[in-house]
Amino acid sequence: MDSGVWLLSLLVALSTVSHIRSEPILRLPSEKAISSDYCDSWRLAVETNNAGAWERVPVNCVDFVAEYMTGERYRRDCEVVGNLSLAFARSVRMVGDGRDAWVFDIDETLLSNVPYYQEIGFGFEIFNETSFDTWVHSAAAPALAANLILYNELKELGFKIFLLTGRSEYQRNATETNLLLSGYRNWERLILRGSSDKGKPAISYKSEKREEVENEGYMIHGSSGDQWSDLWGYAVAARSFKLPNPMYYIP
Amino acid sequence: MDSGVWLLSLLVALSTVSHIRSEPILRLPSEKAISSDYCDSWRLAVETNNAGAWERVPVNCVDFVAEYMTGERYRRDCEVVGNLSLAFARSVRMVGDGRDAWVFDIDETLLSNVPYYQEIGFGFEIFNETSFDTWVHSAAAPALAANLILYNELKELGFKIFLLTGRSEYQRNATETNLLLSGYRNWERLILRGSSDKGKPAISYKSEKREEVENEGYMIHGSSGDQWSDLWGYAVAARSFKLPNPMYYIP
Repeated sequence: MDSGVWLLSLLVALSTVSHIRSEPILRLPSEKAISSDYCDSWRLAVETNNAGAWERVPVNCVDFVAEYMTGERYRRDCEVVGNLSLAFARSVRMVGDGRDAWVFDIDETLLSNVPYYQEIGFGFEIFNETSFDTWVHSAAAPALAANLILYNELKELGFKIFLLTGRSEYQRNATETNLLLSGYRNWERLILRGSSDKGKPAISYKSEKREEVENEGYMIHGSSGDQWSDLWGYAVAARSFKLPNPMYYIP
Repeated sequence: MDSGVWLLSLLVALSTVSHIRSEPILRLPSEKAISSDYCDSWRLAVETNNAGAWERVPVNCVDFVAEYMTGERYRRDCEVVGNLSLAFARSVRMVGDGRDAWVFDIDETLLSNVPYYQEIGFGFEIFNETSFDTWVHSAAAPALAANLILYNELKELGFKIFLLTGRSEYQRNATETNLLLSGYRNWERLILRGSSDKGKPAISYKSEKREEVENEGYMIHGSSGDQWSDLWGYAVAARSFKLPNPMYYIP
């Protein structure tokens, strides 16, 4: 074929392609797009507690959750919550006498278990206590960056930090080690489930413990957690901050 | 220029373009992308009440809110909340004797004021009581589609429907007209702010009114509203459903 003709045919071919491209083509959204749209609404429903109690991430949303938890969006969502928490903390009229308290949950609040959940496929499997316990004892969870910043700023402002976790007393050493390794220092108290707290729903256990703290004379100004059961119930903080968590639900 | 040479130069130019395109180019995200990312996190913070009391949509998020409220995402978010509400309603163990109640807020819950807010630029301006009152009296608000479906299904299931709104008694006629025009029928009671409710925060007013309903012997199984002040306080429903609303905040 003559090179001029060859070039001409190629050019025609190219212009055809570009012509096709510029046509408005009606397309049904791909299955992935449908499922990602639905999952985005499902995630909002989870974060606002509209989804109620749920046992596992919907099968069609596992990829969506994996992408969210390992991507920029989760990091940014947490950062905005951290900034709002700090803005509130700075506006607080402090009681003084070391009685100004802030309560933090640990898992998915101070520490991130994303490396663990990544390993088991992001919530598609039902919670496995044994493998999670092994992970806890590895003390390898990284800090949730936005909350490490918040934690340090709150300490600067003079808040006493109470760590209130659903983890159990036998996990105290591993939990302390992990917190220290990931950069947390000088908390006032680390409260874990004792033998008398076994089997209590988190919302009851955490309300009881907050009430004990209040009864000692502390004013709980703020509370940060990734579950509504970290924040609701009674003896609630003046302001509660819900960190995102579309991986699992704790009643 | 000879046409062969011309074609050749064009082809070279095209291949250069395609070469550039296939290179991984490091780009800073555009200002719109930055702001849309931030606004997405801000919206989540609003829906989870992390943002606390806020007066107006951040300037950089007005376009984002406009796009959200008029697009598929808002419609889909509401639909998922409606479906979850209905799934819960179907699981309810009914008390019977016509004592099973569901409480609906009106604005941004049963009726959509998007046409009004579109007119005034989606929350960028502070709430204007006069112009909103004119809009209310036009009785032109369309039904929020997902909740019209939910409303009818709840009636089928035997729930008594209580409408509990921050609107005032003088707006009763316009409100009833609007509800009827947009397809709502046979509610049990429409509760508006009377003279003694003036100036009360919504959360107190609505809690009081729910308590009155409970004191009459009704069991409030579910409650739907776009503000946390529709849902929290006391005499809360067994399950509360938070509809999205990034346009305004009511304490």
